[in-house]
Order: sequence, then C-alpha cells, then structure tokens
Amino acid sequence: MQFSSTLLENAVNEFSKLPGIGKKTALRLVLHLLKQDTGMVEAFGETIVKMRQQIKFCQRCCNVSDADICSICSNSMRKQEIICVVENVRDVIAIESTQQFNGTYHVLGGIISPLDGVGPDQLNIPQLISRLEKEHPEELIFGLNPNIQGDTTIYYIQKKLPASCIRITTIARGISFGGELEYADEMTLARSLQNRVPVERFVK
Amino acid sequence: MQFSSTLLENAVNEFSKLPGIGKKTALRLVLHLLKQDTGMVEAFGETIVKMRQQIKFCQRCCNVSDADICSICSNSMRKQEIICVVENVRDVIAIESTQQFNGTYHVLGGIISPLDGVGPDQLNIPQLISRLEKEHPEELIFGLNPNIQGDTTIYYIQKKLPASCIRITTIARGISFGGELEYADEMTLARSLQNRVPVERFVK
Repeated sequence: MQFSSTLLENAVNEFSKLPGIGKKTALRLVLHLLKQDTGMVEAFGETIVKMRQQIKFCQRCCNVSDADICSICSNSMRKQEIICVVENVRDVIAIESTQQFNGTYHVLGGIISPLDGVGPDQLNIPQLISRLEKEHPEELIFGLNPNIQGDTTIYYIQKKLPASCIRITTIARGISFGGELEYADEMTLARSLQNRVPVERFVK
Repeated sequence: MQFSSTLLENAVNEFSKLPGIGKKTALRLVLHLLKQDTGMVEAFGETIVKMRQQIKFCQRCCNVSDADICSICSNSMRKQEIICVVENVRDVIAIESTQQFNGTYHVLGGIISPLDGVGPDQLNIPQLISRLEKEHPEELIFGLNPNIQGDTTIYYIQKKLPASCIRITTIARGISFGGELEYADEMTLARSLQNRVPVERFVK
C-alpha cells in the first residue's frame, strides 16, 4: 500500500498489529477516525492507554479489576465459598451473561498446553492452590473448554488439591441447545449419554 | 455484557464505536492490548491521536497529507497537467498500488447521492472547479465507481466545467480480469461491447 501521508501510514500500521485486523480493515478504521472530531479521537486514545496503565488484576481471583480486589470478590451478596475456575476474562463475561452463577471465579490466564509451551507455572495455578488452602471453599467448579488441554488442566489441578474434603465438579458436556444428534461428534454424544440427567416428572 | 472492570468496559465501548467492530471483537482487541507492554499501548494511542490532530488535507487535491501540499502534488516527476477525480483516499491508494498512473488526483471526499442527502456542496467539487479554472489541465480522468451516484457526479461536474478545451475521460467499465461473460450483468456487458478496443496485431 502506498500512502501519501506518513501520519496515516503509522496509524494504519498500529491498527494492523491488532489480531484479525489486516491493512485494508486498518485503513477503513483510521479513515473513520479521521472523519470524527479531534476530541472524540483523543477520548478514544486516552481511554485505551488509561485502561492499560491503570487496570489491575484481582489479588484473589486474578480477574481484571479496577481495584486490588475485583467487584465480584468484594460483593458480599455472592457465595464466596463457591469457586469457578475459568481460562480467561472472556469466559468470566460469558458466564456472568447467563446470570445463573452467583459464586466467585478464578481466572487461570490460559490453559496447560505443552505443545504451545504453556506449563502450570505460566498460569495462575499456584495462586489457586494457595487460595484453596487458605479459604477451604465448599465447591470447585471447572468451567474450562471441553478439549484435551482443558482435561489436562483439570487433571493437573486435581492432583495438586489440598487433602481437605472439597466438592469438585465440571460444567456439563453434551449436545448444545438447538444442536442435532446426527451431527454431534462421537465424543460429545458418548459423554452426554454417560452423564445423562433425570427428567423432572410433572405430577398431577 | 457484564464487566468486572469499568476501565475494561470503557475501552471495549470505545472500540465498538468503530465501524464493523461489535462488542465481542472489541473485547478481543482490548484483551490483546492488555497483554502487550504499557509502552506499546501508549504508542498505539499516541499514534492515533497524533494522526487526527496533525493530519492535513492537501490544499490542491484535498488528499490526506502531512503538509499543506501533499507528496503527490509536490512531486515534480509526476504529470501535474493530468488530474484523476476520485471519491476518497482509499481510491487514491488503490490506484497508486497499480503503479500505472503518473498524474495527480482530486479527492471529492464522497459522491453525489441525493438519497443519502449528499449534494455537491458537501464535496470538494467547488475546489475542483476553481482548480480547473486556474490550472487548465490537459486531461481530466473520472476514476469513480461505476454506479448511478458515480454517473450523476460525472454529469454534474461536466456541466460545471470551464469552457476551455479539456480532454475528459473515464476509467473503462467492462468485464473484470478473470471474470466470466455469462455471469456479467447486462449493463456491464453492454458497456464493454460499446467501448470495445482494437486488438493489437502481431506483425510478421
């Protein structure tokens, strides 16, 4: 791409560093910003930089937070004795959107994946273990993606768990709502059969 | 979407104001930036804001520029007496990428489109007319998209042109390279027949 302006070229290059944004999309975004008021673009830049400079990670659950302890961990209305282990912040947001979970989280910041060179020590697993030793929660829910890496991570954490009696569960794996049996893979279908749940009967 | 951090939420909101970026994509971009060094994110923000604050529009051709006159207009190696009228900066970049054009441009900043409420006065058409009256170029090429709005704009500008003798052309409309006749619409096929060009003969 040939640019008649270095300022434009630099801005396009910055945008195209973002994941999934190519040169053409970057140019479209930059030209959109060029049409906006200077004040609006300044607000855009400042908000992004401020987010990066000031954002913290909750000292308890490792979720992104404005303070040392995040709003979920400091909320006395939530069940602090239930911990849901998730891979990343996106998963916290996904579960929160269901409005069905009233416990707390622990964000691992990734998943054990030896092929990608990610071991337990690069994740927030030591923090989880020491948190469990300190808090002795009632239940530990694994809300990890159902794949080999997820299962490896569950296996690793289980082995490291303190001896104290604790209820350990994982989110159900089965056919998605609206999915079709004939298109489900064998693994999913087999698991949904193994983990079948009783149907509640309507009593007259 | 439920966020545990206002800083994160604000950043996601800013990104999702951009065209074609929804909340989920915005979140992905923000979390990517969160993983980068603070310095890199500061550079990102500063480059965007600096671009908006300092970028100029060439006083001659209305293209984006670092100075009062853009690098194309101030380049003495280019034929200043040939002007290609284009809709926007993206079209300049597209034509420059072909490396087949050695004249100058005039960026209209849009296209006449009464349905969208865009008239000639919102575009850089008055600047084009006064430029033509002053410069008396050899040729005026219309490099506009081949559609109703493009044709309307060509018609309007033609009527406003100064009486001085000037060669007016438009980029060829026809079947794309690699395209197939049977899938071309009637309008395109009809035009490509009307505007057929002689085939150069190989002479023994």
